[in-house]
Amino acid sequence: MFRTHTCGELRLSDVGKKVTLSGWVQRTRDKGSLLWIDLRDRYGITQLMLEEGISEQHLLEKARHLGREYVIKVTGTVSERSSKNPNIPTGEIEIMLSDIELLNASKLPPFTIEDKTDGGDELRMKYRYLDLRRNPLKHNLALRHRLAIETRNYLDSQGFYEIETPYLIKSTPEGARDFVVPSRMNPGEFYALPQSPQTFKQILMVAGYDRYFQIVRCFRDEDLRADRQPEFTQIDCEMAFVTQEDVLNTFEGMARFLFEKVKGIDVGTFERMDYATAMKMYGSDKPDIRFGMQFVELNDLAQNKGFSIFDDAELVVGFNAAGCSEYTRKQLDALTDFVKKPQIGAKGLVYVKCNADGTFKSSVDKFYSEDDLKIWAERFDAKPGDLMLILSGNTDSVRKQLNELRLEMGNQLGLRNPQVFKPLWVTDFPLLEWNEETQRFYAMHHPFTSPKPEDIHLLENEPGKVRANAYDMVINGVEVGGGSIRIHDRDLQKKMFSLLGFSDEEAQNQFGFLMNAFEFGAPPHGGIALGFDRLTALIAGYDSIRDFIAFPKNNSGRDVMIDSPSTIAQQQLDELFLKVTAVSK
Amino acid sequence: MFRTHTCGELRLSDVGKKVTLSGWVQRTRDKGSLLWIDLRDRYGITQLMLEEGISEQHLLEKARHLGREYVIKVTGTVSERSSKNPNIPTGEIEIMLSDIELLNASKLPPFTIEDKTDGGDELRMKYRYLDLRRNPLKHNLALRHRLAIETRNYLDSQGFYEIETPYLIKSTPEGARDFVVPSRMNPGEFYALPQSPQTFKQILMVAGYDRYFQIVRCFRDEDLRADRQPEFTQIDCEMAFVTQEDVLNTFEGMARFLFEKVKGIDVGTFERMDYATAMKMYGSDKPDIRFGMQFVELNDLAQNKGFSIFDDAELVVGFNAAGCSEYTRKQLDALTDFVKKPQIGAKGLVYVKCNADGTFKSSVDKFYSEDDLKIWAERFDAKPGDLMLILSGNTDSVRKQLNELRLEMGNQLGLRNPQVFKPLWVTDFPLLEWNEETQRFYAMHHPFTSPKPEDIHLLENEPGKVRANAYDMVINGVEVGGGSIRIHDRDLQKKMFSLLGFSDEEAQNQFGFLMNAFEFGAPPHGGIALGFDRLTALIAGYDSIRDFIAFPKNNSGRDVMIDSPSTIAQQQLDELFLKVTAVSK
Repeated sequence: MFRTHTCGELRLSDVGKKVTLSGWVQRTRDKGSLLWIDLRDRYGITQLMLEEGISEQHLLEKARHLGREYVIKVTGTVSERSSKNPNIPTGEIEIMLSDIELLNASKLPPFTIEDKTDGGDELRMKYRYLDLRRNPLKHNLALRHRLAIETRNYLDSQGFYEIETPYLIKSTPEGARDFVVPSRMNPGEFYALPQSPQTFKQILMVAGYDRYFQIVRCFRDEDLRADRQPEFTQIDCEMAFVTQEDVLNTFEGMARFLFEKVKGIDVGTFERMDYATAMKMYGSDKPDIRFGMQFVELNDLAQNKGFSIFDDAELVVGFNAAGCSEYTRKQLDALTDFVKKPQIGAKGLVYVKCNADGTFKSSVDKFYSEDDLKIWAERFDAKPGDLMLILSGNTDSVRKQLNELRLEMGNQLGLRNPQVFKPLWVTDFPLLEWNEETQRFYAMHHPFTSPKPEDIHLLENEPGKVRANAYDMVINGVEVGGGSIRIHDRDLQKKMFSLLGFSDEEAQNQFGFLMNAFEFGAPPHGGIALGFDRLTALIAGYDSIRDFIAFPKNNSGRDVMIDSPSTIAQQQLDELFLKVTAVSK
Repeated sequence: MFRTHTCGELRLSDVGKKVTLSGWVQRTRDKGSLLWIDLRDRYGITQLMLEEGISEQHLLEKARHLGREYVIKVTGTVSERSSKNPNIPTGEIEIMLSDIELLNASKLPPFTIEDKTDGGDELRMKYRYLDLRRNPLKHNLALRHRLAIETRNYLDSQGFYEIETPYLIKSTPEGARDFVVPSRMNPGEFYALPQSPQTFKQILMVAGYDRYFQIVRCFRDEDLRADRQPEFTQIDCEMAFVTQEDVLNTFEGMARFLFEKVKGIDVGTFERMDYATAMKMYGSDKPDIRFGMQFVELNDLAQNKGFSIFDDAELVVGFNAAGCSEYTRKQLDALTDFVKKPQIGAKGLVYVKCNADGTFKSSVDKFYSEDDLKIWAERFDAKPGDLMLILSGNTDSVRKQLNELRLEMGNQLGLRNPQVFKPLWVTDFPLLEWNEETQRFYAMHHPFTSPKPEDIHLLENEPGKVRANAYDMVINGVEVGGGSIRIHDRDLQKKMFSLLGFSDEEAQNQFGFLMNAFEFGAPPHGGIALGFDRLTALIAGYDSIRDFIAFPKNNSGRDVMIDSPSTIAQQQLDELFLKVTAVSK
């Protein structure tokens, strides 16, 4: 037996008990006559002690040879500490040792196993097993486990079945790039790993399963941006005989349940906003509504006053940064530099300071009178002491730029507290997105999203105007998930594929099984998929998902711990009827 | 809104309520003046009715045009049935319809959606969405969901974390064949899909997670035997600071909890049997202990009496089939034919009938006297009315053959009731297995299994005799899972790889990360993996796993519903730097 208790368990009430513990040596402190060891396991840290003259000499010897991260099993008696540590639950006791058994030695770790480590990113990834010993990562994975359990219990209580769908499926080039898996038994043919179980969950609705979910791995072979992983986890859900309202209520309920369970927070009823409003008021389809600074449009007030930059713009739009009229020249220049960064791309920034004395000071004083600016301030609801920030240009671009500026101001003003949660449904997304480069429409969500019935008549001649029964769950400016009411009619699905540029043959070849299924009594259905890595990080108050995944890959898609991907044996290639035409350097 | 209630919900107490239901038309019965529709959803069947002269004419018209599997939404009033159906929970009521809305029509299904369908296997696989509508499959997937939920809740209550491990890992040729995934970003390199998360769960123990589990998909590119799938699901578990006893107790507890929760059965304390005993008594490492017929060895009694077949045999062994002395010549010939089948391979069968009058009648009367046979009967504990069945030959072969005969007799005598569950731990497996063909040792479980400490001294000179700290959970003759206490010492692990014929370089290349991890304070650890598809089928009382998987593949590894695997576009191959050298016909 390796232990009678864990290292997080013993309390003052256990004093006098003879106990056995096992764990890792966090540190030893040798004061000559007294020697302490902090013993760590998943559950906590317990202080062990030895005393010259009381403890047996060979134990003291042994203890003096223990290094950091050695694994030991110890036996001793629980005693009350003379100097208590109120910061840890076991801080009132220590173990007076009567035996030490070395279970395994350890080389010196290449970085410290502390909350704040001195290890760099690559080193921590290579020795992930050491990085995972640190408290922040332990808390992250414990939270992830808890969220998964509670998600399942909630959905189970709502009558959902978790049904496993296959990982070896069929490649469908629409959407992101697939990872493929050569089939040995079917030479020249490949499976694909699922980008999501989308078609299978719809098939399950056709099959009458009514309420399906799955916490499931998905795969996308995309060029990895920071904080994107080739494999990621989704809470994937689908319901039959539902309207959009049913889906929103069910998953709003789930999100509220999770926040309540793991954070003890009631996040309240979700705000709702349609896509058009979100774009107009925030310049984003995932607005962070923890703070205001909604957009105010100025065309009618600012144009035709001789300021050609505004006059030539499709849209003049800004927001009020309350309390920022004292921003210095340097601060304002920095904001201008911010919006002019290539990845944001604005040409410049117009500011209007609403001075405390009721006067105004702007970067466009040449063109606008105090009276003009006063009317602007009224529309901005700007008070003395506030700062109006204004951009102009092409509508789509300027909204995106102003969104970036708004978020930056939110950061500067400390309005984006990661422990405050403001969830939101964004609804009524456009069905289709025009791509200038390829000169064709793409599905904004995916080809299975249904158009709003009242917009179907626009499909033929103005497809770009058709709104979808599609919705996103957005929390704190993060798109946590999205979904839609699906098409369940074969003819409408065919039309949709044709709008997306599929020939009948391509559509039949790739999605024939789904369209065939629609001919055998497909019920109305809809669902949602939530990014589980992202949701977990968000709930913990983090931006990056990497430390919420036990074994993430780096930005080249490599697992540097196991050194994968790697070459395979010629025999394996031969069995798969494959030849490699290029190799990594 | 599509429904106020499900089709399994309404009772006599709801009479008078106006309700809306949605579902599939199971069948319609038109008696002229009265018309009934059975409406089905996941939750049950509700009878709808219309009456000539009372119901509106256009509704009767509409109802008469409904075909099987049409999807409809109906509104009406709950009424008490005149002729009640005690076989279904909604059998006391029916809905007097006031509205019918057709949600989707259906082509005539290619087979009947009934508990016993007329569809053949291939047809049912192709139209899996129709097959999945049948009650037996619905019950199977509901059971699977329930088992997954309860498994997680049990393990959560025991302090296990579910931690997701990667699906894109590294190919390691030891063991079964890997499915591989070409990496676009790393030309010429491949990921592999995991055959199990074995090394990752061990890494998690090194990382201090103490108790890990995962219900996880695993992949093996093997030639598919009946009832084997290229992807399958495992309940994968690992614990640190444990002895074999701790692991057995934890998972015996889990299995008992599951049987209790989903079947209401207490399966009792698990019997335990070491591998050597299982082979000697049952000729199998997964004995079905629902019935007796343990093996009895006869060498000392049966040899040297002039019967050369026995004399030349390494082992003479049989069992007592109680109450079978009246087996006819024809029945005995059939048993002889059974053991002589090529897949069993015995040369013949010796029987001894213990007649009711105390005499004996055997197939070897020429060589053995009544007195001889009487002594045999004593050893077999055979009573008048019993039948002794005896085989002889090479020990390993004859035990396997007799095991088959024993199971066949168990079937014939109805001793293998699928609703009776007799679980068993088989322990002390050999560490290594000798392969005659390749003339080398293979790990019986896998290369990470630890030898019994008391057998380590045999590793050098008699490796075949070393027993492992390995165990299997066996229920009703089915290996539900297996595991072991692992090696956690780098040097022992290296020695193990070398025994298995790995060069140091190969070992380092494939498993270096694990051996490196062992140098940084690896705790003693062990675990188990249970086949979830198999466990679910077993608990339901079925042999085949196929109908416990929503979307299984056929024996060529194909999903005939989605028609996968399939060829991929040349562009995809080019991006992956691959060339296909052969194609399927």
